[in-house]
Amino acid sequence: MNDLPSLQDLATRFRDGQTTVRAVVELAIANHQAGGLGAYKTWNGADAAKTAAHVDGLIAAGYDAGPLMGMPCSVKDLYGVPGLPVFAGTDAAFDPDWQRAGPVMAGLLDQLGVVMGKTHTVEMAFGGLGTNPHWGPPRNPWGDGGRVPGGSSSGAGVSLLEGSAVLAFGTDTAGSVRIPASVTGNVGLKITHGRWSLDGIVPLSPSFDTPGILCRTVEDIRYAFNALDPLRPAIAGVAELSGLGIGVLEGIAAEGVDDDIAAAITGTLGTLETRGARLRPATLSRSDAAIALLRKGGLAAPELAGFMQEFLPERIARLDPTVRARIDGAKDLSAADYIRRKFTFADMAARTAASDFAGHDILACATVAISPPELSALTTPDGYAAANLAVLRNPAIVNLLGLCAITLPVGLDRNGMPIGMMLIAPPMQEERLITAALAIERAIGTGAALLGRPPLTA
Amino acid sequence: MNDLPSLQDLATRFRDGQTTVRAVVELAIANHQAGGLGAYKTWNGADAAKTAAHVDGLIAAGYDAGPLMGMPCSVKDLYGVPGLPVFAGTDAAFDPDWQRAGPVMAGLLDQLGVVMGKTHTVEMAFGGLGTNPHWGPPRNPWGDGGRVPGGSSSGAGVSLLEGSAVLAFGTDTAGSVRIPASVTGNVGLKITHGRWSLDGIVPLSPSFDTPGILCRTVEDIRYAFNALDPLRPAIAGVAELSGLGIGVLEGIAAEGVDDDIAAAITGTLGTLETRGARLRPATLSRSDAAIALLRKGGLAAPELAGFMQEFLPERIARLDPTVRARIDGAKDLSAADYIRRKFTFADMAARTAASDFAGHDILACATVAISPPELSALTTPDGYAAANLAVLRNPAIVNLLGLCAITLPVGLDRNGMPIGMMLIAPPMQEERLITAALAIERAIGTGAALLGRPPLTA
Repeated sequence: MNDLPSLQDLATRFRDGQTTVRAVVELAIANHQAGGLGAYKTWNGADAAKTAAHVDGLIAAGYDAGPLMGMPCSVKDLYGVPGLPVFAGTDAAFDPDWQRAGPVMAGLLDQLGVVMGKTHTVEMAFGGLGTNPHWGPPRNPWGDGGRVPGGSSSGAGVSLLEGSAVLAFGTDTAGSVRIPASVTGNVGLKITHGRWSLDGIVPLSPSFDTPGILCRTVEDIRYAFNALDPLRPAIAGVAELSGLGIGVLEGIAAEGVDDDIAAAITGTLGTLETRGARLRPATLSRSDAAIALLRKGGLAAPELAGFMQEFLPERIARLDPTVRARIDGAKDLSAADYIRRKFTFADMAARTAASDFAGHDILACATVAISPPELSALTTPDGYAAANLAVLRNPAIVNLLGLCAITLPVGLDRNGMPIGMMLIAPPMQEERLITAALAIERAIGTGAALLGRPPLTA
Repeated sequence: MNDLPSLQDLATRFRDGQTTVRAVVELAIANHQAGGLGAYKTWNGADAAKTAAHVDGLIAAGYDAGPLMGMPCSVKDLYGVPGLPVFAGTDAAFDPDWQRAGPVMAGLLDQLGVVMGKTHTVEMAFGGLGTNPHWGPPRNPWGDGGRVPGGSSSGAGVSLLEGSAVLAFGTDTAGSVRIPASVTGNVGLKITHGRWSLDGIVPLSPSFDTPGILCRTVEDIRYAFNALDPLRPAIAGVAELSGLGIGVLEGIAAEGVDDDIAAAITGTLGTLETRGARLRPATLSRSDAAIALLRKGGLAAPELAGFMQEFLPERIARLDPTVRARIDGAKDLSAADYIRRKFTFADMAARTAASDFAGHDILACATVAISPPELSALTTPDGYAAANLAVLRNPAIVNLLGLCAITLPVGLDRNGMPIGMMLIAPPMQEERLITAALAIERAIGTGAALLGRPPLTA
C-alpha cells in the first residue's frame, strides 16, 4: 500500500495544487483493492472517484468548503449517508429513511468530505470483538492475521490500516471506537456523551451511545475534532509534558491486565516521567459498581430490546445469537428498575466528575487488558462472553461514568498485536484530553513510528 | 394589596433611585401577610428583607448584577435554593444536598434576584389540580374562593396574585406551569424540553420535565426569559398581528371544552382576525395517540416509580393516594416496553415538528378545557382522576409532542374563573411564541385590564 499524508498535509496540498482529491481518492481505492481486508459492508469507490473530480473542480474555482474537503473517509454502517444502504450489521437493509444524514455526517458532507464506503459493524453494534455471523469479520492484519479486528466499529481501524481512508467514523457505547483503534494500532477518540448529536445514527443504547472518530495519529484526531465539533473549538496547542499530572489507574482497570501489556504501559509512563510528567496513583472509585451493573445488562440490553421490538420485531429471531442472548436477558427487567439504573449511573457520573480527578490532569490505563483474542477462540457462547467482557471492561468504565477518552498506540504485545494506552478526562474536557495525548504522541512517536507496518500489508 | 410594577419598571426604578429593593420587598411581604392565601410551603420574608438591603447597598455602590437584580421571586418547592428546605410536596424535608442551586436557580441568584420563599406543589409534582394532602392547597382567590389553584406549581400563580412576587418559578411536565397560570389569570411559559437544565430540580419525569416561569403579563415573561435563557436571546420586538398565521386547533384539543370557554377563545380569535391575524383550522395529528399513551401512564408513572424506589423507598407508602395509585399502576411495565414508549414519543415529536406547523406561525386552543373544579368535588378517587385528566389534557399534548407554549388570560368564565388561551410553537421557537403572545396581549389587554382584581384580594 501507499501511505496517505496527514489530514493537515492533504488540506494544504489540495489547496496549493500539489495534489488533487481525485489522485488521493484513486490511491485510496488502489489501497483498498490491494488490501483485501474486508473492511467495508458497502464499498463506494466508484462514486467517491466521481465526487472527488467535482470537488477538485470546486477547489479550482476557488471554493473552500472546510477543513475536511476532499478527505477520504470511512463511515461505520450505523450512520445514515444519503444513497448508501444501512445494515447496522444485521442481515438486511433498513428502511431508506435511515439513510438521512444526521448532524455529525452532515458536518462531514457539508465540508465535502468523500465517503469511501460503509464499514462493517458488529450486529447492532452490540459487541467489542468485531465478529458478525452474517457478514464475517474484517481482517486485522497485525500478528498472524487470525485475531479480532475489535468492535463494534470493526471495519473502522482496518480501513485506516489498508489506506482506504484517513478518517474513520465509528460509534462508542462501551468501547466500540477505542477497542478497534487499539487492536489495529490506531488512535480513537470517545467523545463526552451528548456533545455530538446521535440523530441519524442507528441506536444501540441512547443513554451511552456516542459518535467517535479514528485516525492514524493524535495530530489527525485534533484536526478532525476541530473540524467536526459543534462547539467550534480551535485546539491549536499541545500540553506541556513537564508537570502534566497523569493519574495511573489502580483498581479494576489494572486487574487481569496481561503482563506484557502492563509492562508496555508502565514503560511508556516511565518515559513520560523522565520528560517531566508527574505520575500518581489514581482511582475511579465507582468503576467496580459501574462494571457490576454492566454485567447485569446495564442499559444497553433493555434499550436495544426496546428498539428492536418497536422497529424491527421480525428480525429479533434472526439476530446474532450473542446479541440475542443479551436482549433476552433483559426481559425480566421492569421499567422502574431500569430507571433506577439510569439514576444510579447519573449519580455515579456526577460523583466521578466531582472528585476523582482531584490532583490529576488526566488518568491513564491500558485500553484493552488482554491480547486481542484469536477468532478461533470465540466459537462457544462462554468463550465469546468472557473475551467480550475482558476487552470491553476498561473502555466501558469511561462510558458508564460519563467521561471522555482517547487511545493511542504504545507498542506491540507478545503476539505482535498493537497495545493501546487510554487517557481519560472529565466530561467535556476534550481539549485537555487531546492536547495531553498530542504531547505524549510527540514524546513517544506515532503508531507508524512505534509499530511499523502490519505484516499483512507490508 | 398594593400592585407591584412591571419587571422593566422595577429595573429602571431600582437603578435611577426612584425606589429601593428593600421598599419593594417590604411591600411584597406586606401583600403576603394581607393575602393569607397559603401560597408558600416555606416563607423566607425575613431573610429576603435582609438580602434586599444588601442589594440596595450594591446598587448604590454602582454594581449591576443583571436584569433580575432585586426582583422579588417565588420558587416552586422542587428547586434547590441554598438554605431553604426542599419538600417537593412530600411530608418531610429532603436531604440537604437537594438545596444546591442548579443552573436555572443559579441564573436567578447570580443576578441577585430575591427569593421570597418556596411555593407549594402537588406531591412530587404529579397532578394538575393543585391539591396536597400533607399541606393543603393554596387558595385561589378567583370566583367564590373554593376552586382549585391549579398544579402542580400550585403556589406559583397565587404568589403573583397576592403580590408577594413578580416572577414565579414553576416546572411543567404535563401542564404544571400553564394550568396554575391559566386558572389564576396569569401568564405561564412552558419552555422546550432540554432548553433549560433540569439539574438541581427534583424530578417527576425527566423525559418531559421542563422548568418554566409565570408572570402577570407577557411583557414580563419576555423580560424574564431574556434574563434567564442560556442562549442569551435579546427578544426586543413584537410580532406583527397583521398576517400572523394562527392555526385554530381542531381534534382532541377542541373536544369537551366548556361552552363559555370555547366562546371566549373564539371571541378572542375573532378580535385578532379583525386586527389582521389569519385564522385557519389546524391539527396536531399525533395528539390523540399521545393522550392515549398518557392515559396508560405515559413516562411519568414509571419514571417517578424508579425515582422513589431509588432515593425515597420508605416514603412510597406515605404518598398522596392519588400519586401512589399512578406509581403502582406502572408496576407491570417492562423496561423494553417503557423504552418503546420513549421511541414512540420521540417519533411523534419529530413528525409533529416536521409537518403540523405548515401554514401556521403558531397554534391556539383553550389552555384548560373546563372551569377549574371545586375542591369539594375532588374527594373521591374517580372524581379526582377525571378532573385531573380534563385539566391536563390540552397542556399535556404540548409536552408529549416536544413543543413549547404560553398561556395568557382572555376572560372570565361563568364561575368567575379566569380563562386562558394557549399558544403553541415548534421546538426551540420561544422567540416566535413570545413575540406573537405579546402582540396578542397588546391587542386584547393584559390580565389585569381584562379580568380586574380577584374578589378575595379586592
